[in-house]
Amino acid sequence: MLFRFTTRSIMSPRAQRADAQRNTAALLDAAKSAFATSGVDVPAKQITDLAGVGVGTLYRHYPRRSDLIVAVLQQEIDDCIDAASELGSTHGAWPAVTKWIERFRDFVDTKQGLAAALHSDDAAYDGLPERLLDQLAPALQSLLDRASASGDARGDLSAREVMTAVALLSQPAAGAHSNQRMIGVFVDGLGAR
Amino acid sequence: MLFRFTTRSIMSPRAQRADAQRNTAALLDAAKSAFATSGVDVPAKQITDLAGVGVGTLYRHYPRRSDLIVAVLQQEIDDCIDAASELGSTHGAWPAVTKWIERFRDFVDTKQGLAAALHSDDAAYDGLPERLLDQLAPALQSLLDRASASGDARGDLSAREVMTAVALLSQPAAGAHSNQRMIGVFVDGLGAR
Repeated sequence: MLFRFTTRSIMSPRAQRADAQRNTAALLDAAKSAFATSGVDVPAKQITDLAGVGVGTLYRHYPRRSDLIVAVLQQEIDDCIDAASELGSTHGAWPAVTKWIERFRDFVDTKQGLAAALHSDDAAYDGLPERLLDQLAPALQSLLDRASASGDARGDLSAREVMTAVALLSQPAAGAHSNQRMIGVFVDGLGAR
Repeated sequence: MLFRFTTRSIMSPRAQRADAQRNTAALLDAAKSAFATSGVDVPAKQITDLAGVGVGTLYRHYPRRSDLIVAVLQQEIDDCIDAASELGSTHGAWPAVTKWIERFRDFVDTKQGLAAALHSDDAAYDGLPERLLDQLAPALQSLLDRASASGDARGDLSAREVMTAVALLSQPAAGAHSNQRMIGVFVDGLGAR
């Protein structure tokens, strides 16, 4: 640790920033993976070993566990938003919608793994699910508007409502296969007849 | 009360049974209405005044509040099952399905009013939502089978899955209008193309 710190301290500011970005990216990837396999209370060392950084680096970037969880969720949100742009430019109007909804379902399934934390009393999580949906809505809305304009999707449901429906139908109620079938029926209904 | 009791005691057994059935029906109607307006903790007297019976009659039939709540739910289940038979004999295959789902949604909305009680620690409620769905599934399944055979509905979703989806999409998440639109899209998807 002392060696790492000494090394950093003699680096140029630009190299320090690049180093910090690499560490942050590695930590978020490692945290996402560790949360998925061991839950949000996974020991810090398991995350930092996976990321190849020291525990001090973790606490410098994310002092509290909630900071790390929120950062992991934020990165997934950003990835979902990027995916909407990419799908919109590489796929037809309706396949772009259905593929993005699949992507969103993956995100929701990840989020359910973090649900216990999200429902804790930690103020860091207050209103977080709503904020996440608020950020994602414009990405899906642009895909929906295109599919509605081309006559491939009905236009009377907002992106927010579509995401809410998919999230509700993803709740563990009748087994994963049932969730998949129920969402499939909903998405079929979303397509224009 | 003393007078009522004296009157009952000199009635024939058959008349006593008829009297008890009338009282039970009146109590369940009154309880359903009182729960809807004032919640499940509504004072007993408010229910018995509405039913036109004495409080002793209430406690003789339903010693605990949970007995009364479960009985109200059971009556709604029975009504839903009767409605399936009636819709099946008076409506076309697909309208029978959609109208029964509307009926089920009303039931689910009622049940949500009782949700706090259902999630209490009272053992009387253990597994109750599952038992309710188990009782209702055959009623919807017969309607679904007919609509699937006539090519009006897809056949890859079970009645249980359809009811689960409608129940999930009925959860207060985005306002009553959104619930209605989301369920409408799901039902559209359920229809065969």
